[in-house]
Amino acid sequence: MRYELYYWPSIQGRGEFVRLALEEAGAAYIDVARLQPKGGNGMPAMFRLLQGSPRLPTPSFAPPFLKAGKLIIGQTANILLYLGPRHGLAPRTDAGRRWTHQLQLTVADFVNEIHDTHHPLGPGLYYEHQKAAARRRTDDFRRHRLPKFLGYFEHVLKDNPRRRGYMVGSSLTYVDLSVFQLVEGLRYAFPKTMKRAERRYPGLVALHDKVAARNRIAAYLASARRLPFSEEGIFRHYPELER
Amino acid sequence: MRYELYYWPSIQGRGEFVRLALEEAGAAYIDVARLQPKGGNGMPAMFRLLQGSPRLPTPSFAPPFLKAGKLIIGQTANILLYLGPRHGLAPRTDAGRRWTHQLQLTVADFVNEIHDTHHPLGPGLYYEHQKAAARRRTDDFRRHRLPKFLGYFEHVLKDNPRRRGYMVGSSLTYVDLSVFQLVEGLRYAFPKTMKRAERRYPGLVALHDKVAARNRIAAYLASARRLPFSEEGIFRHYPELER
Repeated sequence: MRYELYYWPSIQGRGEFVRLALEEAGAAYIDVARLQPKGGNGMPAMFRLLQGSPRLPTPSFAPPFLKAGKLIIGQTANILLYLGPRHGLAPRTDAGRRWTHQLQLTVADFVNEIHDTHHPLGPGLYYEHQKAAARRRTDDFRRHRLPKFLGYFEHVLKDNPRRRGYMVGSSLTYVDLSVFQLVEGLRYAFPKTMKRAERRYPGLVALHDKVAARNRIAAYLASARRLPFSEEGIFRHYPELER
Repeated sequence: MRYELYYWPSIQGRGEFVRLALEEAGAAYIDVARLQPKGGNGMPAMFRLLQGSPRLPTPSFAPPFLKAGKLIIGQTANILLYLGPRHGLAPRTDAGRRWTHQLQLTVADFVNEIHDTHHPLGPGLYYEHQKAAARRRTDDFRRHRLPKFLGYFEHVLKDNPRRRGYMVGSSLTYVDLSVFQLVEGLRYAFPKTMKRAERRYPGLVALHDKVAARNRIAAYLASARRLPFSEEGIFRHYPELER
């Protein structure tokens, strides 16, 4: 089966957490909205499947969503919950899968807060119209929220009884891929903050490096399939917010 | 087995979505942080199980979390994913459960945005110190986000092929309980907005009423176990934000 991933074509965004899992799995997939509209792909195909369009049994509120055969699955963490066990990226036990999912939902919470640093007044206004508020929110984020989330993930990693350097159990799961993306994105968005902070999260940094060095991930990162970070995505680098 | 729910003792908050499921299920549970500290309960018991305290295999980033035998499960939607099938509050098929969970994750996204109306600059500042920003964020929320989320849920309800007035399938699931709580909370927080808006969501309003009339839910709502809404929770009524 060839998966169809639907996500905004020009950003990493939340879709990237799914892309990393598909790439590590070596799964066959197409990134529908990035293809040409002729042949039934592209953005029109994505909008056809979103809410409001012809009635679907399971319409998503927003991208990303994944088509797997007849299933259409939305919500990033829910997509990973589906993909994980099918591609050896989740533990074998129910309890292990539930714990992995819980961590992914906490990643999602963190991602929301990262997004809100540049859009504290809501997604409806441009960044340029909420700069002062973004500055205040980012201050709080850098001082309190970033250390709280990264400190939590570092503890989870350290306290993993298997001590193999992964978040859960003794081998790679999709949460490890997400931690890689968090470290990579935070370094892009807040380079000064991360330069000072990273020494407190040696486990996460080592995990980041280990993920980056995996064959399929390294090949993906070097390919044109990996979009660059930009000021359109979740992780945005606005130097004025770090001053 | 008697469940142990851990959540802030003085607010409905995110814990309420779990409480409603436990109440509808008629499940045996204690609300640990609301009990007296003597006997090993109360807030100290909650903090003992949170991150930072003696190392647990699955520490939660934040409440609510649920102790079920030896399991400790965090993240509201993840707790409901666990409880649903065990108490007849989720569909029988994997695909049905996944879809129910997807909707619950979208409820969680909506709850985050509802919270952010009064805390746009982050959880670290009091509301009183971010009133102007809250006003702007609430404007965007009332105009764009509230209609987008409620419109989505109304469509899902209407397009449910079973046409029994539930969000998923032909009987009650935990998502229906959450929709009840959303309508109830939004009426409390934004009475003027909801008064004008509700006519556009007749399905959700009917579902709200149907849930409120269920025996166990009605008994719960009339009991002291149901905490009142207040300006400490997620749904807060600040009249100045609706002007």
